[in-house]
Amino acid sequence: MSNRRTAFFISDRTGITVEMLGNSLLTQFDVVEFQRVTLPFIDNLEKAQDALNQIKAAHTESGKRPLVFTSLMADDLREEIAKADAMVLDMFERFIVPMEAELKVKSAHAVGRSHSAGNFKDYNQRIEAVNYTMAHDDGMTNRHLDQADLILVGVSRSGKTPTCLYLALQFGIKAANYPLIPEDLEKLKLPPALLPLKHKVWGLTIVPERLQQIRQERKPDSKYAALENCKWEVNTAEILMKNAGISFLNSTTKSIEELATTILHDAQLARRVY
Amino acid sequence: MSNRRTAFFISDRTGITVEMLGNSLLTQFDVVEFQRVTLPFIDNLEKAQDALNQIKAAHTESGKRPLVFTSLMADDLREEIAKADAMVLDMFERFIVPMEAELKVKSAHAVGRSHSAGNFKDYNQRIEAVNYTMAHDDGMTNRHLDQADLILVGVSRSGKTPTCLYLALQFGIKAANYPLIPEDLEKLKLPPALLPLKHKVWGLTIVPERLQQIRQERKPDSKYAALENCKWEVNTAEILMKNAGISFLNSTTKSIEELATTILHDAQLARRVY
Repeated sequence: MSNRRTAFFISDRTGITVEMLGNSLLTQFDVVEFQRVTLPFIDNLEKAQDALNQIKAAHTESGKRPLVFTSLMADDLREEIAKADAMVLDMFERFIVPMEAELKVKSAHAVGRSHSAGNFKDYNQRIEAVNYTMAHDDGMTNRHLDQADLILVGVSRSGKTPTCLYLALQFGIKAANYPLIPEDLEKLKLPPALLPLKHKVWGLTIVPERLQQIRQERKPDSKYAALENCKWEVNTAEILMKNAGISFLNSTTKSIEELATTILHDAQLARRVY
Repeated sequence: MSNRRTAFFISDRTGITVEMLGNSLLTQFDVVEFQRVTLPFIDNLEKAQDALNQIKAAHTESGKRPLVFTSLMADDLREEIAKADAMVLDMFERFIVPMEAELKVKSAHAVGRSHSAGNFKDYNQRIEAVNYTMAHDDGMTNRHLDQADLILVGVSRSGKTPTCLYLALQFGIKAANYPLIPEDLEKLKLPPALLPLKHKVWGLTIVPERLQQIRQERKPDSKYAALENCKWEVNTAEILMKNAGISFLNSTTKSIEELATTILHDAQLARRVY
């Protein structure tokens, strides 16, 4: 029998919160191999019974008690899951109960309300940020560039696009991005459109060997992907950004989340929560 | 003095998990007005002391004990925050400690490891999904459409783009989207490129009045935004999708997260966790 255990993430709605919480906790136990199973939309007794059966089956199969992270709000569903011979880590019990005591009010006990559509203004702001970011990807246009909350620069494939999209979707930030192309690099100057906006420009850089690897998958055996060229582009871009007084991050070992939140923090922009 | 309390989300890294968890819990207490403050990258004692001072200041200002959600792993930092006269909801204490007992291993005790760059293969898959989704936004190209994990259709401004981007970024799904334009609607037929791929097509619809409101912000007083036109497009698109046997969701009151996870669930696609 292996050391493998099943970890369930059970929610009455999207499951995003409990999945993220559970996954974050599991990463602290990297000697254990986990099989992760997300069960979203468990919003009636029949589905809860089905979830319970899946927990039992996982237990039988591995011989180990599963871990079960739940964010269910309804008592009858929580009681159903609690029947499992498993370690149930219940967000309700561990957080809502003490919060009720502290706040001296009863919780709404409503099916998960986060990630809900909310009001039209918030929704619009988020969608506007996504649209803006899409329209200003890869230096596509200089129109309304002054409306950007921030502008990311860096050589091609340094991670600008996913970072900007994450900023827009997660935090409602209008994030334009602008490639540093060989002509900019030769002149050692920022693209002219960015000069008056330098205060909102942030940079990404990357280890040349990693850049080569990424570009090689995209355009195999091109000059674009050649290590010599990657080295030149990265080194020159770093000199350019230093000269221009632009702060930059190395994306090589950072996730999209880390890049996005670090820049947001440095730029002192508000984190909206959706 | 108002009923307003401050809620802090304190992390040694991005803060995304603890912010999402805390926000999800706060939505259960909608009679209380919360001022939300995220403090990410609290990774040394000096920063923890600064956080403690912010908690004290919030307490003094509002006269109410703040709520403090923390995901700090280092004991000295957790002890520093615990000095606050506040309700501290510590993920470590509430989850990691019982998990250690259950798993009979010590946790790594390492600074948050979720959302880390992980291995090159996972990273590549996620970035590939983002690139694919960007390249296949709004029916931009039919190239490699067969490689999509799913294809979203719907009238212009029904929510396709943000939903697809969320699927790509959050779950590594290659999500193309294709507008249903007036020519498709007049013929009551899916765009020809989608016919052989119907098994992976999902639809979005929207209440015409909401669509009008959204389009009106984009192109005021156009035929495109006129209520009559919105009604015709929505009704016809729904008939088209029903005829074609395409499942569709109404995006009017659903968040991006709900749309994305519902479609993912219905399509029985794996949820990757990054």
